[in-house]
Amino acid sequence: MNAPTDKEIVFASRMAQLRPSAIREILKTTEAPDVISFAGGLPAPELFPTETFQVAARTILSGDSTGALQYGVTEGYTPLREWLSGYLNETVGLRVKAGSVLITQGSQQGLDLLAKVLLDPGDVVLVETPAYLGALQAFQSYQAKVVGLASDEEGLRADLLEQALSALSAPPKFLYLICNYQNPTGTSMSAARRQDIAEIAARHNLLVVEDDPYGRLRFEGGPERALGAQSKSGPWAYLGSTSKILAPGLRVGWVATSHAGLFERLVTAKQATDLQTGSFTQRLVFALLNRGEWLDQHIANLCEVYRKRRDVMLQSLESQMPEGTHWTRPSGGLFLWVTLPRETTDTLSLLRRAASHQVAFVPGAPFCVGQILSNALRLNFSNASEENIRKGIRRLGGLVRSES
Amino acid sequence: MNAPTDKEIVFASRMAQLRPSAIREILKTTEAPDVISFAGGLPAPELFPTETFQVAARTILSGDSTGALQYGVTEGYTPLREWLSGYLNETVGLRVKAGSVLITQGSQQGLDLLAKVLLDPGDVVLVETPAYLGALQAFQSYQAKVVGLASDEEGLRADLLEQALSALSAPPKFLYLICNYQNPTGTSMSAARRQDIAEIAARHNLLVVEDDPYGRLRFEGGPERALGAQSKSGPWAYLGSTSKILAPGLRVGWVATSHAGLFERLVTAKQATDLQTGSFTQRLVFALLNRGEWLDQHIANLCEVYRKRRDVMLQSLESQMPEGTHWTRPSGGLFLWVTLPRETTDTLSLLRRAASHQVAFVPGAPFCVGQILSNALRLNFSNASEENIRKGIRRLGGLVRSES
Repeated sequence: MNAPTDKEIVFASRMAQLRPSAIREILKTTEAPDVISFAGGLPAPELFPTETFQVAARTILSGDSTGALQYGVTEGYTPLREWLSGYLNETVGLRVKAGSVLITQGSQQGLDLLAKVLLDPGDVVLVETPAYLGALQAFQSYQAKVVGLASDEEGLRADLLEQALSALSAPPKFLYLICNYQNPTGTSMSAARRQDIAEIAARHNLLVVEDDPYGRLRFEGGPERALGAQSKSGPWAYLGSTSKILAPGLRVGWVATSHAGLFERLVTAKQATDLQTGSFTQRLVFALLNRGEWLDQHIANLCEVYRKRRDVMLQSLESQMPEGTHWTRPSGGLFLWVTLPRETTDTLSLLRRAASHQVAFVPGAPFCVGQILSNALRLNFSNASEENIRKGIRRLGGLVRSES
Repeated sequence: MNAPTDKEIVFASRMAQLRPSAIREILKTTEAPDVISFAGGLPAPELFPTETFQVAARTILSGDSTGALQYGVTEGYTPLREWLSGYLNETVGLRVKAGSVLITQGSQQGLDLLAKVLLDPGDVVLVETPAYLGALQAFQSYQAKVVGLASDEEGLRADLLEQALSALSAPPKFLYLICNYQNPTGTSMSAARRQDIAEIAARHNLLVVEDDPYGRLRFEGGPERALGAQSKSGPWAYLGSTSKILAPGLRVGWVATSHAGLFERLVTAKQATDLQTGSFTQRLVFALLNRGEWLDQHIANLCEVYRKRRDVMLQSLESQMPEGTHWTRPSGGLFLWVTLPRETTDTLSLLRRAASHQVAFVPGAPFCVGQILSNALRLNFSNASEENIRKGIRRLGGLVRSES
């Protein structure tokens, strides 16, 4: 048999932009059990509703096994889509029919499908910088030109959005945002800023893509309406997921949109991509979501545990990090964002040393679009015990202090 | 709130090639319970191993619930990848390490990922015509130029492949084939032709993408080695799936490849597309696949039932179709391919009339690349009882006879 070499295959040009990250390789070394990792975006597995899933799996496989095991329609399981129609109205004020909700393989697939139907090479996408890495990868995999806009303490700066929309020669295809407990910074957009951003986008007929995986993990403050539910809104798409409120391993998310033509094309693209999201897993998550009181109680419990972990992390940072270190104070979600005192600090190098000290995080640079914040890093507080948070931040603080 | 219209969004140029099909709309009308449908590619739900899945689901959710519910690595569940390494060697002679097997959301996603990492707009892909519709959609969604090559009774014509490789100004990115019980024709490639095709591809350094969802559904004859396992083989990728041997609703497939660089890029693309295939569903299918004797018995049972259904369909066609009608005689799989006597017959129009006579099929034209066979149609024999096959072919035969 021939032993073909890598030279023999010519890859698509998009692969030049879609590279495996160096960080991923370093983080693999931090998967050992003695490493305290604040790197992943993992929910706490000890809070998975395992017994409730066990009951649901039994019920579904005895009562609706054909539905669970056979092919289903590309759009998704109808009862789940109907339930989501009500849920999106109740939780974020979006008025959307079940017929405009597409079930996806996690919300990551929603990002991929939006990019697939909207982006030609060179098309511009506007994002808040720093931005969710998976979204950047999805957009870059279709060779988009991603333009980053900075934020202030209320969220994406409206003046920069106006400026970008005036300055760009071709209109951007869409604006991508996480308004609630953003990944990676943990910050949220103020109510007033949501109105401003929605109004500017509507005036420019700019499609707003709002990604909301963390919105229900709210520790303080009231819920905010989605950008598409502000008093003045243009076309929107809204992505959600069961990954952070039930379990990520089932891979069930959704994308809803105000735009009938966009919806239809997302369905066509999904059909060419993977035919449909799993029939069994859609039924499994529906069985849990549809238990209203149980769901509220379950989410309240997640919030309670994560809130305490956030508090312990904030206290630990306060006592361990050197003067001049800044960090965000998220009122929900999974992450916070730390900026080290010296602008010349390279958190990628720091990660290499941290790994040998049994503590891990994600350096800030890969999240940045445009200006690179090399002295920033992202910390996850949902997937470590309070004790490990104290211990891990002590290790990290010692390392940072020894270098400043 | 504004009411945006469809005019406001500019879609990517690939969407012009990625259209929802007219057939899909007609087929929706044939989903009523009184319609006998030979249209879908559905396995028989009464043969789903429901009880075995029930036991497996219980075991997994009690013994490995964290693994089943938490995020996993993009490449897939390691025990499943290791099992597949052995399985591919035993069943089709492919020597591939677990590290070169990527678990996908059904084999449809494998096609999408291959297209994503290999195809720039205008790149040429060679296929056998008629070809699997989902593959054509996947390739067209990356704006490939798909070139169809005709077959004879042994499979894809080797002389046409040689001709195409000499005539094309740019080398094609890959050759796509289903060698076993092809969708839509049901025919298989002879052993000699497999050797010829593999040898030609190797000589031209042409990547061979072999899709093998039906290979285990073998009613007669011995198993054949994969194209990548022939004595002279160049670079290859091989796709498989649990959809036809266990259950399609779980959406677990795989792509394996001889090419380390290709594998690495498939993983990177998968990460940007949906992060990973479901953790729970991968464990579920592994639990069943890993029961060797049970699996062989289960597949033998599927083959026994489907073989009888194929026989009934062949007998019914013999007694019901007018003289001059031709059809294939598959030795496995789910489908057969009928060519009506008159070349001017349009099976899309026939489908509209068939739907009002409570019988459905898929017209041949959409499967065709280049020359359109408008008088051909695809029949599925796995998802109807013997009685319904007799009844449905009687309806179809009456309709065809009334028109000839």
